[in-house]
Amino acid sequence: MIWDRLWLNAHLATMRPGSMAYGAIENGAIAVRGGRIAWLGPMAALPHRNAVLVEDLAGAWVTPGLIDCHTHLVFGGNRANEFELRLQGVAYAEIARRGGGIRSTVAATRAASEEELLAAAAQRLAALQRGGVTTVEIKSGYGLEPETELRMLRVARTLGRRPDIDVVTSFLGLHAVPAEYAGDSSGYLDLVKGPMLQAVIREGLADAVDAFCETIAFSSEEVAALFAAAKALGLPVKLHADQLGDLGGAALAARFGALSADHLEHTSEDGVRAMAEAGTVAVLLPGAYYMLRETRRPPVELLRAHGVPMAVATDANPGTSPLLSPLLALNMACVLFGLTPEEALAGMTRVAARALGLADRGVLEVGALADLAVWRIGQPAELCYWLGLDPLERLFKAGAPVGTVGAAATAPLP
Amino acid sequence: MIWDRLWLNAHLATMRPGSMAYGAIENGAIAVRGGRIAWLGPMAALPHRNAVLVEDLAGAWVTPGLIDCHTHLVFGGNRANEFELRLQGVAYAEIARRGGGIRSTVAATRAASEEELLAAAAQRLAALQRGGVTTVEIKSGYGLEPETELRMLRVARTLGRRPDIDVVTSFLGLHAVPAEYAGDSSGYLDLVKGPMLQAVIREGLADAVDAFCETIAFSSEEVAALFAAAKALGLPVKLHADQLGDLGGAALAARFGALSADHLEHTSEDGVRAMAEAGTVAVLLPGAYYMLRETRRPPVELLRAHGVPMAVATDANPGTSPLLSPLLALNMACVLFGLTPEEALAGMTRVAARALGLADRGVLEVGALADLAVWRIGQPAELCYWLGLDPLERLFKAGAPVGTVGAAATAPLP
Ligand SMILES: [Zn+2]
Ligand SMILES: [Zn+2]
Repeated sequence: MIWDRLWLNAHLATMRPGSMAYGAIENGAIAVRGGRIAWLGPMAALPHRNAVLVEDLAGAWVTPGLIDCHTHLVFGGNRANEFELRLQGVAYAEIARRGGGIRSTVAATRAASEEELLAAAAQRLAALQRGGVTTVEIKSGYGLEPETELRMLRVARTLGRRPDIDVVTSFLGLHAVPAEYAGDSSGYLDLVKGPMLQAVIREGLADAVDAFCETIAFSSEEVAALFAAAKALGLPVKLHADQLGDLGGAALAARFGALSADHLEHTSEDGVRAMAEAGTVAVLLPGAYYMLRETRRPPVELLRAHGVPMAVATDANPGTSPLLSPLLALNMACVLFGLTPEEALAGMTRVAARALGLADRGVLEVGALADLAVWRIGQPAELCYWLGLDPLERLFKAGAPVGTVGAAATAPLP
Repeated sequence: MIWDRLWLNAHLATMRPGSMAYGAIENGAIAVRGGRIAWLGPMAALPHRNAVLVEDLAGAWVTPGLIDCHTHLVFGGNRANEFELRLQGVAYAEIARRGGGIRSTVAATRAASEEELLAAAAQRLAALQRGGVTTVEIKSGYGLEPETELRMLRVARTLGRRPDIDVVTSFLGLHAVPAEYAGDSSGYLDLVKGPMLQAVIREGLADAVDAFCETIAFSSEEVAALFAAAKALGLPVKLHADQLGDLGGAALAARFGALSADHLEHTSEDGVRAMAEAGTVAVLLPGAYYMLRETRRPPVELLRAHGVPMAVATDANPGTSPLLSPLLALNMACVLFGLTPEEALAGMTRVAARALGLADRGVLEVGALADLAVWRIGQPAELCYWLGLDPLERLFKAGAPVGTVGAAATAPLP
């Protein structure tokens, strides 16, 4: 068999569970055919070198392309102005009075055309790709009315038709109660779980349904009603759970067999146990914890003790986590939440794939998608250790090189 | 007069103090001749367009090139392994027993050739440049014996001979007591303030003398002895002060008219008052605060109240701040220390120049060096708000474009 591409002299962090840290194969080679990994192993075991393209990676490390399993990448405007006002000492109430908070993003998103949303999201997506991302989840949730929610999801689908990225979408109609429904969240719930959900499904725009379960958003009963409707229509669910207080969000997510429960700062041991039994992934979002200067960390020790797999994501969003660097998310997961570098990297590869219900990526193994990130580092822990080094050298999506990613890393200044 | 370059349709964050936030000139133009700013002002006031090169910046923002006034950019090895061990639960004492901590960096730096140190530092410098840096300070301090201290400073000087960056050097012989002098810090002090300082001066390798004043490092008496020697030889001083405890470092620095006192987490109001009287700049280093998970912030309110100018720097170093993103340092200065975005940006431009004793940069004004960063943002606060967006579009050092910087930003993926 002739391979499409063969890379020699690479260290492979396969991320397959096993006895070696990072599933590492040092001094290895990896070959691709038809967009999938066709062979990988130690150089000494390489059966032949018949490939259209052969490249020497000169001791670089190869990991699975990173998977960012929780983002709000599509939105209008940004909240830099609000960020600045807060630091100038303007009170939250005053900022809200001036139309700040999620309302300002909803207004800007509703006002933006599909083309404008696409251009802004593409710039942010390029930043994630420069950090090594080959698969990204994108949520709606800044429309809060049918037309804009659908427009956000169409933009996400449009991004996903590019050959250099895979996009998984989530319908987050239950993100906040829009001003038009102030004091009538059950009326808004009816709209979301009825006509909006049906339209989303009719157009094939969502791979899952998400919701925000907090006292400032929706109750567990309201979320349960939406989840029941989603499950009846065959869509998996996931949940923003227990970020600001313990509303039993983790247990609620588990009850519906959710793919993931995300945030979890205030989740109890009962919630963790329920997630473990349901096989629900914990998605940790240290960017929001950092930006909000929270002090209560998610129960990492309990998640470990109960065997709940932990993913890590950027939560890229304009309000609480304007974070577009996957490697910075890894660093924060280690420094702020105490994950080991290997746990953090698994959280943006193998476990993140599981959080999205994707069985074909997140590890390097024969048959998996050839989504590969090539890093100029001496050991995998450096991906979590440096802040802002950007050691990405090359990025491949299904075996094909991704745009100009890594140009800066490979062409250092004179 | 014919200008070398003229940029049209830019918003200018001049950073000149005055009534406008960021010293902003919206809808402006800026012209360069002989590496210096020859004209700047509103488009409407542009006197002519006679320039060799005219470019339309299409509404981008221009700031002074960023100045990183406190780094340890030259070192051997890195401490990713130690970072990983700590997160795996290995105790500090055990890591020290295995040769970890600053000792491991000293050993790796001593073992590295000048070429190896240069190559590693150049890669890190490229990351700073991709973040908009045009002037960087670099310290010695991982040699702790004459030959390696001089080699570190020679590497810094070599970097500084490149046309695309200016390097300011500091001799930090009093960084730690080397193993050879364990229990004999006064013997090591004699070496540093005698033969080492003389050799540094003889070769013209240092622009200032720095020291680390902490219970785990050197006492204020030892630092004072070094500072007296430095001042006698005509070199300005600066100090790592009050990071882990209040040893009166700020007041000590002020007593010697130091350019800056850096860290300052534990500085008292007396120390702040002394700095104000001496005109000593406060250099805030949020990267180390973040990585060490410190909880005591520098006295920002007192520094403001007493009119002490605040700079912000990366502190780029392998142990406590492996931070190579100036924009992340700005974000951390805001989020962790409560600076306003304007204070933070002044801290990496106008105030940082003052911390290095440089009067020719850090603001956009006629006659200043034409070190210019061009950003694809809608407002200056975005430089502090985004985490990992990398909005640098172009970078100019003394009017000339810097390498491939901004290639990723200007050539988004297809
Ligand atoms: Zn979210
Ligand atoms: Zn330092």
